[in-house]
Amino acid sequence: MAYPVVERPKHFKTGIVGGAGYTGAELVRLLSIHPEVSLEFVTSEQYRGQNLADVHPHLSELTSLELIGAEQALEKDVDCVFLALPHGVSQKYAAAFLEKNIHVIDLSGDFRLRDGATYQKWYGREHGAAHLLDEAVYGLPELYRNAVRHARLVANPGCYPTASILALWPLIREELIETHSIIIDAKSGVTGAGATPRAHTHFPRVTGNFSAYGIATHRHTPEIEQALSQNDRQPVVQFTPHLLPVDRGILATIYATPKGSWHPELVNEVFARAYFNEQFVRVMKQPPEMKQVRGSNYCDLHARYDERTGRIIIVSVIDNLVKGAAGQAIQNMNILFRLKENCGLRQLPVYP
Amino acid sequence: MAYPVVERPKHFKTGIVGGAGYTGAELVRLLSIHPEVSLEFVTSEQYRGQNLADVHPHLSELTSLELIGAEQALEKDVDCVFLALPHGVSQKYAAAFLEKNIHVIDLSGDFRLRDGATYQKWYGREHGAAHLLDEAVYGLPELYRNAVRHARLVANPGCYPTASILALWPLIREELIETHSIIIDAKSGVTGAGATPRAHTHFPRVTGNFSAYGIATHRHTPEIEQALSQNDRQPVVQFTPHLLPVDRGILATIYATPKGSWHPELVNEVFARAYFNEQFVRVMKQPPEMKQVRGSNYCDLHARYDERTGRIIIVSVIDNLVKGAAGQAIQNMNILFRLKENCGLRQLPVYP
Amino acid sequence: MAYPVVERPKHFKTGIVGGAGYTGAELVRLLSIHPEVSLEFVTSEQYRGQNLADVHPHLSELTSLELIGAEQALEKDVDCVFLALPHGVSQKYAAAFLEKNIHVIDLSGDFRLRDGATYQKWYGREHGAAHLLDEAVYGLPELYRNAVRHARLVANPGCYPTASILALWPLIREELIETHSIIIDAKSGVTGAGATPRAHTHFPRVTGNFSAYGIATHRHTPEIEQALSQNDRQPVVQFTPHLLPVDRGILATIYATPKGSWHPELVNEVFARAYFNEQFVRVMKQPPEMKQVRGSNYCDLHARYDERTGRIIIVSVIDNLVKGAAGQAIQNMNILFRLKENCGLRQLPVYP
Amino acid sequence: MAYPVVERPKHFKTGIVGGAGYTGAELVRLLSIHPEVSLEFVTSEQYRGQNLADVHPHLSELTSLELIGAEQALEKDVDCVFLALPHGVSQKYAAAFLEKNIHVIDLSGDFRLRDGATYQKWYGREHGAAHLLDEAVYGLPELYRNAVRHARLVANPGCYPTASILALWPLIREELIETHSIIIDAKSGVTGAGATPRAHTHFPRVTGNFSAYGIATHRHTPEIEQALSQNDRQPVVQFTPHLLPVDRGILATIYATPKGSWHPELVNEVFARAYFNEQFVRVMKQPPEMKQVRGSNYCDLHARYDERTGRIIIVSVIDNLVKGAAGQAIQNMNILFRLKENCGLRQLPVYP
Repeated sequence: MAYPVVERPKHFKTGIVGGAGYTGAELVRLLSIHPEVSLEFVTSEQYRGQNLADVHPHLSELTSLELIGAEQALEKDVDCVFLALPHGVSQKYAAAFLEKNIHVIDLSGDFRLRDGATYQKWYGREHGAAHLLDEAVYGLPELYRNAVRHARLVANPGCYPTASILALWPLIREELIETHSIIIDAKSGVTGAGATPRAHTHFPRVTGNFSAYGIATHRHTPEIEQALSQNDRQPVVQFTPHLLPVDRGILATIYATPKGSWHPELVNEVFARAYFNEQFVRVMKQPPEMKQVRGSNYCDLHARYDERTGRIIIVSVIDNLVKGAAGQAIQNMNILFRLKENCGLRQLPVYP
Repeated sequence: MAYPVVERPKHFKTGIVGGAGYTGAELVRLLSIHPEVSLEFVTSEQYRGQNLADVHPHLSELTSLELIGAEQALEKDVDCVFLALPHGVSQKYAAAFLEKNIHVIDLSGDFRLRDGATYQKWYGREHGAAHLLDEAVYGLPELYRNAVRHARLVANPGCYPTASILALWPLIREELIETHSIIIDAKSGVTGAGATPRAHTHFPRVTGNFSAYGIATHRHTPEIEQALSQNDRQPVVQFTPHLLPVDRGILATIYATPKGSWHPELVNEVFARAYFNEQFVRVMKQPPEMKQVRGSNYCDLHARYDERTGRIIIVSVIDNLVKGAAGQAIQNMNILFRLKENCGLRQLPVYP
Repeated sequence: MAYPVVERPKHFKTGIVGGAGYTGAELVRLLSIHPEVSLEFVTSEQYRGQNLADVHPHLSELTSLELIGAEQALEKDVDCVFLALPHGVSQKYAAAFLEKNIHVIDLSGDFRLRDGATYQKWYGREHGAAHLLDEAVYGLPELYRNAVRHARLVANPGCYPTASILALWPLIREELIETHSIIIDAKSGVTGAGATPRAHTHFPRVTGNFSAYGIATHRHTPEIEQALSQNDRQPVVQFTPHLLPVDRGILATIYATPKGSWHPELVNEVFARAYFNEQFVRVMKQPPEMKQVRGSNYCDLHARYDERTGRIIIVSVIDNLVKGAAGQAIQNMNILFRLKENCGLRQLPVYP
Repeated sequence: MAYPVVERPKHFKTGIVGGAGYTGAELVRLLSIHPEVSLEFVTSEQYRGQNLADVHPHLSELTSLELIGAEQALEKDVDCVFLALPHGVSQKYAAAFLEKNIHVIDLSGDFRLRDGATYQKWYGREHGAAHLLDEAVYGLPELYRNAVRHARLVANPGCYPTASILALWPLIREELIETHSIIIDAKSGVTGAGATPRAHTHFPRVTGNFSAYGIATHRHTPEIEQALSQNDRQPVVQFTPHLLPVDRGILATIYATPKGSWHPELVNEVFARAYFNEQFVRVMKQPPEMKQVRGSNYCDLHARYDERTGRIIIVSVIDNLVKGAAGQAIQNMNILFRLKENCGLRQLPVYP
């Protein structure tokens, strides 16, 4: 049954496949006040038959929403589904929804890499729906808005790639930096690791702590390199993720060496030019703090040229569950449905 | 100039006096997406002439909003002002706005106590606008909705009192508990202490820490006792606040001894009955966690009777900056303006 | 093999059964610089054969300590073993060590309750070694020092009971309070919940959060009531534990109604009298903050009489892993071995 | 008067100038259990005449220690003083103590840079005791142990430089990396910013947050470059500090490009070779977590070669108040006094 809070008729119907995790819950939070879209169902294999509010007490307003199984979801008449499933699971469901002419916005990593071999190398297994890779559109609207508009299958970007690509794209597209000089030192809150408790996400271990992980091996590396490719030349990016003692948020500190001669003011011009018309990218005069985007769909950016070392340093922040996941997914949905891109996404950050 | 995001004409005009602190910023956050109300100005003596976004980078969307002085605010044509000022300062401004037939919603403690002598005893100074105390309406809508509807001056409740009174009211109004048995052990995030840095709010001291303060002397005690008075009998409440290593949120654990014989199911019936029609009070089957209301206007409650000890235990949670301050102020404004009470306040909590 | 850091011969040999958890690791930390005691072995069924430093990287100095199985431990020649095992498991091992004339200090809840029926009621299962309950000495040195001195089996107190009993004992032994009026509102860091990741200890859920749990049903309730019994009269204690977003530490806020007439100064006299000679109990002029005992064996106490309400309020803080577990266990061992009670426990708190 | 806990006579006498801050308190904590050294006095201009325990409640054992003024300290007969003063203040006191043949270990930045002009450039003022710069020994024992042994004035390294230099030195001294390729992305707990409350260290702002600061301009940059100079060639280091929502600890992630051909195993050999004999540097097989050294004098290091990018990545962690300040100062004192280098510093980390 439909989510009942807003009374006036909605123009589009959506559903969420995979509602037990953080991304699914965040989609519910954002869709619940979207003025043009109804949420018709949420699935969960683990909790099917239970009420959404029992699984997510913070959503306990939505008392009439019962979790269903994914196969029931296939029988629903909706315009779009969000797949909020683990990597490797989305690829099992995407085709079935597409066959029913339902748009699919996949929030896993399954359809982000265009090349099945690259997927296999970094994800360690063969792709189960490789025939869809060609058609999937990488859903970073600031770069690929037009492609998203006509997509059937949108691969919603990863959280680290969103923060990183938006920070580097203005410099890459004007070919201003040495593409082999890029170092991304990224720091994420723990929701990025998902809702399943593990030793490395146990509270006593994480609080008051900080650590690097996945050095040289993180799966978001090829995703970043792919998006930053220009004219068939792909950069080699050094990407080091870290775990912050924080629930939400990503901050990436990015280093790159500019090509040729350079002057300090140029960097601001480049970023202002790139994002002049963007509603969700805010170019800041000062380095942004991570929490200043909490709960919102903003990516805040600050870039600086260090004359002493000859390097450009960029600081980029997002909320990993919003612009890094559910918010960007809804932004993509708005584009698909020809709605205003910030429809339902106008909430300001919850700070402090 | 008016906040420009929503294009369609708004029915009411508001302004914020005191925009440098957390409560002021939270009012801006919530008003910015309120569909029926425009924000005409924000004042700050400290930052007047600066842009709001320079003081609150998370609000950097609102680039055209320049902070003005309070005396300029008095010349603005608005329907309602929010006073987000320190205790003792609000009482200097309230009368001036009232004289211009502008509704005043005061978020300080200045107009919460009906009796000037009680104010003087707990706040340690004489009241500067005692003639307004009689007229001020204590703005806890769940108890005093009708009075708020006709108020000129609304005294927005304190954060601890909001969590405490909503938890105790169902039992008090049915005269089910011994009013001298009430113990409120309350825990608050640090935003409750305001935006000014002090030794006891310095990060290294608060993180990983927890402490009681204001034992037996906190100013919210008489506010709670006043609201829980029945038939001229005032309870004597033991109130102990604590400082949590958290930015937002209050959780109060409340103990009371029931009168006469009692059975476990009764407690749930009492709370269900009291809040059946309330949109912002959610009676929970399990004890609520503090964060499950973050960013929202909910008060989540759970009550239980312990047969072994013969006591009732109630757990109550709110976001101190929303239901404990800015959200409740907007709820009061909605009532004043005959809008839907949840207008502009429908956002679900930002969790986790 | 023996822990090799200190070269001079030690007088006593100890071992730890259960070295994978937080309590076991904390025992290693404290024993490693104990001047009179050697650590001969640490067991772990899960990690047997691995190096202690692989399981606990912070202990990576101790490279020669290989984890053994518990049955190997039974063949070791030691003076004392610490059982740092889950509730229900200790009772399987205690008798075997006692039979070999090895002192046993058990850090689980297995031997704390004198009465097997009470154990069964609160722990939900029959006791597996009920014949040892009579002989076990409740190892709270400030109350039972002489009994500990002659014990074979020491039941090391729980963390909440340690903070609570030390706070109430001075009033109870002088019969100054109504024993049915006691309310203990206690707050603990997450290490109190052990090292195994669970949904309620997952970092994103706990950080920025706070919650009550085990209302009216927590197993530490009967332990507190037993220790506070006087002349066969047992108090009925209201005990409510809460989970703090903190790794270590307990703060208990305790309420009690004094008997008869009372004056404010009395409360300080009572506490000063009770703990004049105690090295690990510090009676404070101000309410202690939880973190001010971090890493140390102190219990810091502050008591106050509220004339307005007629209640005594006591604030008590400990580090749950030290005075609430491993430190107190070593304090008990020192007593058993006729060492100075603060031997190896003189470290000051790590603050902030 | 002397700190009275340890009864046996101490061989050396010390005092602390500047006891109100975190570094001063940490020196007290560590010296209080140092077996060979007595603490004769602690000064504080702000709190002179008060008891140390009133300023630092966690030290409330030390009830007889009254804070004195710095000029009184000059009359005390001690072997060594620790200057735990702000930058710019130490330079006013150092000469006076040296004239009395008292060793000075300065924990500020005042004597770390050998060149007065470099000091002026980065600290923004002329040096007030530039004649002492030549004689000051940079007190990083792992690099300059012999010089420390004969020093009168030891400049205790900064916290970031300690973590950074120890991570890079093994590669630098064997000339294995391009010295202009070094990027240090460092993250610190908030105690690194001192005990004075400021807007950017206010708890609500820091918790759940993360931010970069001092990009391209931090004063620790020239300190690192100086220590990494070889044969008069000074590297140009990119240094970016960040503020973690944590009380203690530094983690530095460091990037460098090796010279010439390289193989992955080499990096481990280089670090093993460099620190084989060091007691306080632990070379780890896995990237260290920041908290695993909390409260201890360890620097834990892990280095890795990324074949794909051709870079070396090093992760280095310390407790900024111990190895990054007070612990290293005591290590230097031990060297000066020909004590064992780990004397009084053998405590293992307090984890978790």
